[in-house]
Amino acid sequence: MVMSLHYSLYSNVKLPLFCYKPASEFGSKFHPNLFIKNSSEPECLNQLCPPANQSVAAIVFGDGSSHSRLYPLTKRRSEGAIPIAGNYRLIDAVVSNCINSNITKIYALTQYNSTSLNSHLSRAYSGARLSKEGFVEVIAAYQSPDDNGWFQGTADAIRRCLWLLEEYPVVEFLVLPGYHLYKMDYQKLIDTHRRSKADITVSVFGNKKGEDLGFGIFKLNDENLVLEFRENHEMSTRKSLSVENLVNFDDNEKCNFPSMGIYVINRNIMIKLLTEYFPTANDLKSELIPGAISLGMKIHAYQFNGYWEDMRTIEAYYRANMETIQKTNKAYNFHDRDSPLYTLPRHLPPTLVTDAVITDSVIGDGCILSKCRIKGTVVGMRTRIGDKAVIEDSVIMGSDTYHQTGISEGEHTSIPVGIGEGSIIRKAIIDKNARIGKNVMIINKDNVQDGNMEANGYIIAGGIIVIIRSAIIPDGSIL
Amino acid sequence: MVMSLHYSLYSNVKLPLFCYKPASEFGSKFHPNLFIKNSSEPECLNQLCPPANQSVAAIVFGDGSSHSRLYPLTKRRSEGAIPIAGNYRLIDAVVSNCINSNITKIYALTQYNSTSLNSHLSRAYSGARLSKEGFVEVIAAYQSPDDNGWFQGTADAIRRCLWLLEEYPVVEFLVLPGYHLYKMDYQKLIDTHRRSKADITVSVFGNKKGEDLGFGIFKLNDENLVLEFRENHEMSTRKSLSVENLVNFDDNEKCNFPSMGIYVINRNIMIKLLTEYFPTANDLKSELIPGAISLGMKIHAYQFNGYWEDMRTIEAYYRANMETIQKTNKAYNFHDRDSPLYTLPRHLPPTLVTDAVITDSVIGDGCILSKCRIKGTVVGMRTRIGDKAVIEDSVIMGSDTYHQTGISEGEHTSIPVGIGEGSIIRKAIIDKNARIGKNVMIINKDNVQDGNMEANGYIIAGGIIVIIRSAIIPDGSIL
Amino acid sequence: MVMSLHYSLYSNVKLPLFCYKPASEFGSKFHPNLFIKNSSEPECLNQLCPPANQSVAAIVFGDGSSHSRLYPLTKRRSEGAIPIAGNYRLIDAVVSNCINSNITKIYALTQYNSTSLNSHLSRAYSGARLSKEGFVEVIAAYQSPDDNGWFQGTADAIRRCLWLLEEYPVVEFLVLPGYHLYKMDYQKLIDTHRRSKADITVSVFGNKKGEDLGFGIFKLNDENLVLEFRENHEMSTRKSLSVENLVNFDDNEKCNFPSMGIYVINRNIMIKLLTEYFPTANDLKSELIPGAISLGMKIHAYQFNGYWEDMRTIEAYYRANMETIQKTNKAYNFHDRDSPLYTLPRHLPPTLVTDAVITDSVIGDGCILSKCRIKGTVVGMRTRIGDKAVIEDSVIMGSDTYHQTGISEGEHTSIPVGIGEGSIIRKAIIDKNARIGKNVMIINKDNVQDGNMEANGYIIAGGIIVIIRSAIIPDGSIL
Amino acid sequence: MVMSLHYSLYSNVKLPLFCYKPASEFGSKFHPNLFIKNSSEPECLNQLCPPANQSVAAIVFGDGSSHSRLYPLTKRRSEGAIPIAGNYRLIDAVVSNCINSNITKIYALTQYNSTSLNSHLSRAYSGARLSKEGFVEVIAAYQSPDDNGWFQGTADAIRRCLWLLEEYPVVEFLVLPGYHLYKMDYQKLIDTHRRSKADITVSVFGNKKGEDLGFGIFKLNDENLVLEFRENHEMSTRKSLSVENLVNFDDNEKCNFPSMGIYVINRNIMIKLLTEYFPTANDLKSELIPGAISLGMKIHAYQFNGYWEDMRTIEAYYRANMETIQKTNKAYNFHDRDSPLYTLPRHLPPTLVTDAVITDSVIGDGCILSKCRIKGTVVGMRTRIGDKAVIEDSVIMGSDTYHQTGISEGEHTSIPVGIGEGSIIRKAIIDKNARIGKNVMIINKDNVQDGNMEANGYIIAGGIIVIIRSAIIPDGSIL
Repeated sequence: MVMSLHYSLYSNVKLPLFCYKPASEFGSKFHPNLFIKNSSEPECLNQLCPPANQSVAAIVFGDGSSHSRLYPLTKRRSEGAIPIAGNYRLIDAVVSNCINSNITKIYALTQYNSTSLNSHLSRAYSGARLSKEGFVEVIAAYQSPDDNGWFQGTADAIRRCLWLLEEYPVVEFLVLPGYHLYKMDYQKLIDTHRRSKADITVSVFGNKKGEDLGFGIFKLNDENLVLEFRENHEMSTRKSLSVENLVNFDDNEKCNFPSMGIYVINRNIMIKLLTEYFPTANDLKSELIPGAISLGMKIHAYQFNGYWEDMRTIEAYYRANMETIQKTNKAYNFHDRDSPLYTLPRHLPPTLVTDAVITDSVIGDGCILSKCRIKGTVVGMRTRIGDKAVIEDSVIMGSDTYHQTGISEGEHTSIPVGIGEGSIIRKAIIDKNARIGKNVMIINKDNVQDGNMEANGYIIAGGIIVIIRSAIIPDGSIL
Repeated sequence: MVMSLHYSLYSNVKLPLFCYKPASEFGSKFHPNLFIKNSSEPECLNQLCPPANQSVAAIVFGDGSSHSRLYPLTKRRSEGAIPIAGNYRLIDAVVSNCINSNITKIYALTQYNSTSLNSHLSRAYSGARLSKEGFVEVIAAYQSPDDNGWFQGTADAIRRCLWLLEEYPVVEFLVLPGYHLYKMDYQKLIDTHRRSKADITVSVFGNKKGEDLGFGIFKLNDENLVLEFRENHEMSTRKSLSVENLVNFDDNEKCNFPSMGIYVINRNIMIKLLTEYFPTANDLKSELIPGAISLGMKIHAYQFNGYWEDMRTIEAYYRANMETIQKTNKAYNFHDRDSPLYTLPRHLPPTLVTDAVITDSVIGDGCILSKCRIKGTVVGMRTRIGDKAVIEDSVIMGSDTYHQTGISEGEHTSIPVGIGEGSIIRKAIIDKNARIGKNVMIINKDNVQDGNMEANGYIIAGGIIVIIRSAIIPDGSIL
Repeated sequence: MVMSLHYSLYSNVKLPLFCYKPASEFGSKFHPNLFIKNSSEPECLNQLCPPANQSVAAIVFGDGSSHSRLYPLTKRRSEGAIPIAGNYRLIDAVVSNCINSNITKIYALTQYNSTSLNSHLSRAYSGARLSKEGFVEVIAAYQSPDDNGWFQGTADAIRRCLWLLEEYPVVEFLVLPGYHLYKMDYQKLIDTHRRSKADITVSVFGNKKGEDLGFGIFKLNDENLVLEFRENHEMSTRKSLSVENLVNFDDNEKCNFPSMGIYVINRNIMIKLLTEYFPTANDLKSELIPGAISLGMKIHAYQFNGYWEDMRTIEAYYRANMETIQKTNKAYNFHDRDSPLYTLPRHLPPTLVTDAVITDSVIGDGCILSKCRIKGTVVGMRTRIGDKAVIEDSVIMGSDTYHQTGISEGEHTSIPVGIGEGSIIRKAIIDKNARIGKNVMIINKDNVQDGNMEANGYIIAGGIIVIIRSAIIPDGSIL
Repeated sequence: MVMSLHYSLYSNVKLPLFCYKPASEFGSKFHPNLFIKNSSEPECLNQLCPPANQSVAAIVFGDGSSHSRLYPLTKRRSEGAIPIAGNYRLIDAVVSNCINSNITKIYALTQYNSTSLNSHLSRAYSGARLSKEGFVEVIAAYQSPDDNGWFQGTADAIRRCLWLLEEYPVVEFLVLPGYHLYKMDYQKLIDTHRRSKADITVSVFGNKKGEDLGFGIFKLNDENLVLEFRENHEMSTRKSLSVENLVNFDDNEKCNFPSMGIYVINRNIMIKLLTEYFPTANDLKSELIPGAISLGMKIHAYQFNGYWEDMRTIEAYYRANMETIQKTNKAYNFHDRDSPLYTLPRHLPPTLVTDAVITDSVIGDGCILSKCRIKGTVVGMRTRIGDKAVIEDSVIMGSDTYHQTGISEGEHTSIPVGIGEGSIIRKAIIDKNARIGKNVMIINKDNVQDGNMEANGYIIAGGIIVIIRSAIIPDGSIL
């Protein structure tokens, strides 16, 4: 029987942290089928005690680094603000995870190309959809009497905002990179943390044992306690000061798990690490975490085995978009009623389709699609595609407004935003507000793997042509 | 030259009511092309003085009558709440006209099946998008110490709300039916009213001279002054008390214009008509307006010649939807940046298309379309269409949520909301949340013109099959 | 020890419905004092399973009856819309109770003078402050093809809205009168309901045993099960059809508890009562509840012993306001951070005080108080009080806007909204937007108990003078 | 006659830029008194053509410099975020000016201590109260691939945001310091600019001729054209590179007007100044403006003579607050219905007063005032003042929440937020969330003019004691 099993797991706890009650106990006449659930889990497994909205604050990092390998998508925006899957920005995935996990105190820390991210977060999450005391507070890097510099790293950023983060008496901080695509109920992670009475709990990715996903590798013992930490130095985009003291792991991959950059840290542990033990450390991953290990703190690991895409490169970003168009998508369900993906509310007109053949594609709101053929493509909001255009295996980000005539840095052009008549696009990423002329071919004709043609409005990365935001590609061009 | 022409038109006015200034006068270095306009009108023709947002209040009637010929679309909702064009409700057209005409004091009067209309208006227009003192205030019929009855007609409704309508010191009331599809800059109507110094100005439809569109016919003189009013009694859905005194018009259609049910009435004229002159009149159209004529008031007519669709019948509603899918749509431009159509903001996922052939159709937000063929069809929000389904010349309203399993009035069904695999639908209207099973044929096989099969989940009107809201059509049915 | 006690209470349940965990178990370094709580309750006692926001829908009745004894406060508004305590409307108390109890699906049913209530609810609770799937949906009485009449009573109202109320698969409905002032965590009530496996649970008021507060009296047995129901016919404002079958209670007051009009009813029980067992019953209190008793359903009682004020009369309303100004107010804490009272957000200027002596009073937002004396008075938003005015033991509701000059039903007056210079007001209620001239004395000089001087702008009830909304009291008047 | 006079003023313009129409022309029955206006201006003088909401974008600087003389008020916030007048933040004055001037495209540029300013702007102005295309967009300083540095000055900040500011095709940019208290209809300023066909128009302060208010001094000719610019170097807080070429003005104060730091700059002029003519200039005031003069651009001056307070120092901030409490305040009318001051909407309880004597003071929302005496004081939101406390000539900023017990940087204290019993405060500024114990005397007993006792929780500036945000002043302290 389920319940006794449930109990035996934590017989030393005496009391389940999660509420659980079979539906049959809800009053004499209750009909169990009235619950509409997609999952077969017990009804009430998603409540923490104290509840997450009162006891946890999320700290979301909206940008990776200034040396992003996602350039030119990050030319004018931070990583979290990159459009994805037609209607969204990358950071919506993590913020929606928080909301769906009942975490409603969310601080978003930004400093790199932060404008569009800040604008999106302010408008998409201001008040609405967060319960009575919830908020998404954007903290942009700032100068102060104490410190005139930029955030020097993730640890430095948190330290400098501590005066603000301490405002609410939360029990744990949940540190999250803001540019990954995945669904996780953080309540399960926090529950694991509380049950294990750890000082810090890290989330590790069970599907890529032994790899370094950019956040280092943890060696675990049988009870999921962290023994050691190691970084692949080539992966590291920031210099780490204290990695000398990391041992070389043996090659037993079984116990080497990649970190996901997700940490649950007890409030007082966070404060002590930042202000007492390592007051000059700048980076959380490469300084604070190794430091905590060296101090003998109890660091537990939570294994996550679901879909997770980090999108560190153009290729990874392209692949993640391609995965969103598969109907049998176990990867990431955008249409899940129980854990919806939130974003900026809009009121766009419906998509107008004239004689198009559309295969295996995702179509954002308010597009205008003429007699074109679209296959395996993500078509973003307000995209306009002309007659006889053929789009295959591509990501079209769409546009910010309708009818924007050609004004671009002083010049005038007659090429409107969108894809012109007769143009052919294959395996390309077309950033927002780009103007592709008529009979253009974006097909990587010379099969270039990597090249920088920024002056001409595009770059090539991993064989994928990326047309830069607001770029103009004249009629008849062949790329 | 434009300006002198402009002046000569109203040389007796001495001063233009509209501001007008050629772009070339804006400072020495101003570049005229910086303005992005779709129209060729002078820049500033859309400002009234005093401005509309301070001097005009709109009174919108959300429902026609309880004997709507739009049944069963009005079974659970009033006419203004009927979904249209995939993403909208009918009343959005009129409310958006108001907002785009700078009229931001909007009272919506309702009493028939008002729940979904009230809910839509409250959520779609609460605060946002209306400027600092704007509002859309829903006034549902109510009982009071003075009067325990329902609104007895349009005049009675306004009279009973006068205490509230008087709250702001507006100059004119603009009376609007809330269930017509058209774009009108009401500022031009009001400008005409002010210039002519009329007591009342009525909007007439220039394209259907001699017809009665349900609001009667006005006979005009050469200066657009109303001479007489006539109603087609068969058209009238409410009894009119005072039509005896209306003369029969001669057959000169040239001067007989159909009323659009749109009236600009000076505030004090409105108060006097309702409380002094005709304190027991119930209907505006058939009692107040003829009464005002008989009193010798100055009633001016404003001729409107654009697209206008009244949607009094299932056929008209069907036709209006079909018109929204034409690309060369002079009828009604949903993608116009300058006069957008507002509605409830949403954050739905993009539409997911698997191998569909879509021709001349409009696709609402968040649909899931499998290997189907869609032609000449309006596909509403969250519509799910199964493999091998064929939809032609139809209106699919979509659904309110995803994954709604089959609970309908106590029964359980395994048919999900949407269109099942292999089903064929031609010239039909599928209301919200309907569950069409697999291999269903909705083709009006017996070519019935009108029929009531409500017990089976549909009716037929004008040869169009209308599947009722939340109806269930079992697998293999042939209608 | 607390925990074992906790268990022994429901040893037959085997599992606690509420989560409970001592703070000391939260991880090794957790500091218990980080929790800031005003109460000494265990941390997590306020979570239901399934949580209230997913499993409970509240049905709030915004108006009592058309024969309200609160007239003239209800002349233009329903009971729930009456201003209270300077900044609020009565219904805010009940809606805030819902929000603070994690109940976020709230239907407000109205039909009597519903305009200002609907407007308040739409603007105050639209989206914001309710979590991701929450709403306050106003359902005004409406005509439909099935039924052209008004709601004939509480049961009839719910029956006619059942198609809408069934939209979400909730487990219980919580029926609430919307015009009472009290704080209750409805989660405790629902928890009691679920533990007892009752069909219906009623809330009874422990502090007034034997009295009928307008909702009848329940006779309970030792296990808090309802045995019988009785109404005081003089109290009843609606005719009850089925009270013949009610026995006369014996005089043992110990087991006779007044109903508070608050019911938790299982969803399927509600549907069966309304559609199968009593399909023609109009009233919930006097028909459905006695009917459920007669059918032998399990009806449990939940005893509430806190502050509760029903405000059925002018005197009760006056008294409730007077209680809000006591600092040692155990009655109703408006400044409680953990269960705040929500209302329409405003951005009024601060109150400007010139040389006032203010004693034991409550001052709403944005008042302008001159050299006046205010004692024991509730002063509402935007109240303007002139020099040398003296206000004692009164309720001043304030005004809707600033600087409103004297336009009232066609007449012009130079008396501005507010209290004029030198006026003296004692034990009075001044409704909104009233214009009290200079040197007016509102002192009930003839010591009248009850009188209707509505033509002069006021009535007297229980010795309290009530100045009617927007009334004008000329300079020098002595009332 | 008014109209002809009106015309003769700009006979060379041929057409009035402002609409104007005597009320008597509004239809035959129009009653002129229906307009409620506080001013005697013609009705329609506040419309620009093209209207300001389509043709003007405001650029608001939220912070002055990092060397603010308002320290310690700027310890944790930028100048624009400083609380003022009980309910507001300084920046609300300028943003409200914009909204009331129909300017709804507002960019707020920040980098110094920007967190609380960003949070305030996002929450106070997101969507609501701005019309359909309006926004307040916060642009925090950010790093980008092109530039890793902070904004180096006002010109540098605008230059780096040009890509964003160019998004909408506005005609003029309006540059505004965000930390001044004044009411100005910017439409009049812009109208002057357009009539004079200037490249740049600067606003000068007529009331302080010859003084430098921190933005330099303009020497004007008789036609209000700028001849020269001069800075008082001691005033200047940023180094200016190009001031050598500024001549010394003669002492004729008549034509020497202080700049207010407010500039209207034609869009293309702004772009050319920043990118072509002075691509390395950092400061607008000391580089771009003198540069534009040297290039012979047409720079016009607009004279403003109303109330204006710059609040550069603690004394000025103190004085501005003191002025808000005067009833005969010509300075700044917070209760003006026509040009309201906007801020973050709140729903606080009314202020509770127990036996207080309050003289010439302003009381913010939701205070709890016991048997205290308050005179000449601004009392901010949620301020709690204990029995027998005496507050005179002070600014109490209030607190962010209720019931906040004493947790401050790890320590525990029993002193609650607010002013303790028996304490006496004179001529002091008490910043937010300060905890003043019992029987404290804040009276500047040693009559110190300036002193830094930051370690003890306060500083003294100009004889005014400033208690620092969240400081704790123990029982019995005498300052």
